Amino acid sequence: MKDDVFYMKLAIANAKAMKGQTSPNPLVGAVIVQSGEIVGIGAHMKAGEPHAEIHALQMAGEKAKGADMYVTLEPCTHHGKTGPCTEAIIKSGVKKVLIATQDPNPVVAGKGIAFLKKAGIEVEQGICKQEADRLNAPFFHLMQTNLPYVILKSAISIDGKIATADQESKWITGIEARTDVQRLRQEVDAVLTGVETIIQDDAGLIVKDSFNHQPIRVILDSTLRIPLHAKCLTDHRAETIICTSQDYDHQKYQQLIQKGHQVFVTSGEHRTDLQAVLHMLKKRSVMSVLVEAGGSVSASFLEASLVNEAVIYMAPLLIGGKDAPTFFEGEGVKKLKKAIRPADIEYSMVGKDLKMTMTF
Amino acid sequence: MKDDVFYMKLAIANAKAMKGQTSPNPLVGAVIVQSGEIVGIGAHMKAGEPHAEIHALQMAGEKAKGADMYVTLEPCTHHGKTGPCTEAIIKSGVKKVLIATQDPNPVVAGKGIAFLKKAGIEVEQGICKQEADRLNAPFFHLMQTNLPYVILKSAISIDGKIATADQESKWITGIEARTDVQRLRQEVDAVLTGVETIIQDDAGLIVKDSFNHQPIRVILDSTLRIPLHAKCLTDHRAETIICTSQDYDHQKYQQLIQKGHQVFVTSGEHRTDLQAVLHMLKKRSVMSVLVEAGGSVSASFLEASLVNEAVIYMAPLLIGGKDAPTFFEGEGVKKLKKAIRPADIEYSMVGKDLKMTMTF
Repeated sequence: MKDDVFYMKLAIANAKAMKGQTSPNPLVGAVIVQSGEIVGIGAHMKAGEPHAEIHALQMAGEKAKGADMYVTLEPCTHHGKTGPCTEAIIKSGVKKVLIATQDPNPVVAGKGIAFLKKAGIEVEQGICKQEADRLNAPFFHLMQTNLPYVILKSAISIDGKIATADQESKWITGIEARTDVQRLRQEVDAVLTGVETIIQDDAGLIVKDSFNHQPIRVILDSTLRIPLHAKCLTDHRAETIICTSQDYDHQKYQQLIQKGHQVFVTSGEHRTDLQAVLHMLKKRSVMSVLVEAGGSVSASFLEASLVNEAVIYMAPLLIGGKDAPTFFEGEGVKKLKKAIRPADIEYSMVGKDLKMTMTF
Repeated sequence: MKDDVFYMKLAIANAKAMKGQTSPNPLVGAVIVQSGEIVGIGAHMKAGEPHAEIHALQMAGEKAKGADMYVTLEPCTHHGKTGPCTEAIIKSGVKKVLIATQDPNPVVAGKGIAFLKKAGIEVEQGICKQEADRLNAPFFHLMQTNLPYVILKSAISIDGKIATADQESKWITGIEARTDVQRLRQEVDAVLTGVETIIQDDAGLIVKDSFNHQPIRVILDSTLRIPLHAKCLTDHRAETIICTSQDYDHQKYQQLIQKGHQVFVTSGEHRTDLQAVLHMLKKRSVMSVLVEAGGSVSASFLEASLVNEAVIYMAPLLIGGKDAPTFFEGEGVKKLKKAIRPADIEYSMVGKDLKMTMTF
């Protein structure tokens, strides 16, 4: 039977499909139902373009009158780039609005709901709230902390290694997991790694077969050891920002600048200041960052409590070795009671690999 | 509906319940069905006592005549401690015998089936074969290699650590996983660890709340560093065998012997020879050994391809640390194509921990 949950899930599915193309705006989907028939569907597709509700109302046209509207996020009341959705909803004659979750943006925060109610529209909240919150975790995080949402990705063996003692890491996981990582990259605004990964693997950090969206490449390089011929500096396939510390090599800095590269100098003394990097990215409209790095860079994010989500692919093999690196190096915790405990872990199979998606 | 699979699964369930008490004999269950009614059930319970078929036939009595017998392993024809089962089956008047899997023991090997057929009994093979083979993996392994079956157990964090950099390891996993380990111990004939675990944790390696069966404790100790006051040498709760190399401390050896302890000296030069240890255990009727040790001992078993099964409990937490130990230390593999790939992995949740049971 098609019930409230069915329609809301359809709205969520449409919203979700736009992952990676709405930044800095949230993902939103809308469905309009008139006498048991879907008469309009919409999703927010790109910042500056109409909101989900507007698309759905346009599709429904006259049929919106007396209809129910399902929307994954509270409609806006503010005059932004596209005018407030609440006014359009009221004007359309929609009878009832069902909202999955409230907008965390202080500019909106419950005002949309109050505005609709005042106009005599019935409002129901909370259908599929958890899914809707999860859908916009990066947006909610940004609103609450003013920092981009950090997703850490790693591919490991059952014994936690990310490479052999000889540093061989290609490939631990299967083709399906690697394809899944491509999708992860496509959904974020920036991909971050350490200079060691660039030196060792000359990683391109590119979404293969993508016609348009390429996340910004961010390289942590405290002394500017990055080779000038590195793929990420020469392939012109995506923007690259090199982030460094006060320890940087001034001569190399000049070379990089002369070649037109972007170098962001943080106040970090020996290590690039991660908070500063995230703030800089936020200012550049980056809502989500995928950290695809070695065990030391991952450790610096984990130890600074800057990781919001981790996606770990565990391949069905054992590598072994006291000197083989794990995905979480650094100092680690000294006492078990200080261990980092994810709030939630989802397990799923991706090909023959176990995918663990954890939120903190 | 009660069908062949139903009856065979019942026979397997009864056989399985005897895990840990039949060594060096295999686990066997039998069910007798007369006109759709179960008239006899049996299982082999202890070496020297009747086989499963005999128990079931005794229970069935006269009702065995013309009945079907389900048995998880091919009945024996040899005159062992309890006389051949095939003769008893023929004598009972059973009409048909359904067998899950053949006996790998060269003394039996198809002879039981041939003997039954020759006596005019219908024989059907292969029902639930995979489960029946898995059930007696240790017995089959022993028959084929003359070595005990080795099960490696470890408790790890998501990032593969078995302790913090400060060596704290109690407790990574939850109470449910630790209870599951108690069950593992109860099902094996010996528990093996390294002397380091004795020195660090003074591990007792005991099945808690067990009234009878306690596995033999085997301690690898290449130089005889074991403290004389160690729990496993003083608690008298189970037999303990200390296994050492040619590097052993002769004075300590005398002390241990004088106190009545068992020390097994292998020809290993600097490390205790694992093959020799397994051969010695086999001679002592040990069919299965649970290795519960640190990363170095586990690595030595894995690197020598002596592990038949691994049970890894992964707790939902991150420990981190370049110096924190993982469950597979040692040299490890240098090239990914040499990585150790389990033939099969089963995933299940035990409390909040992920249990991975892999066979090699």
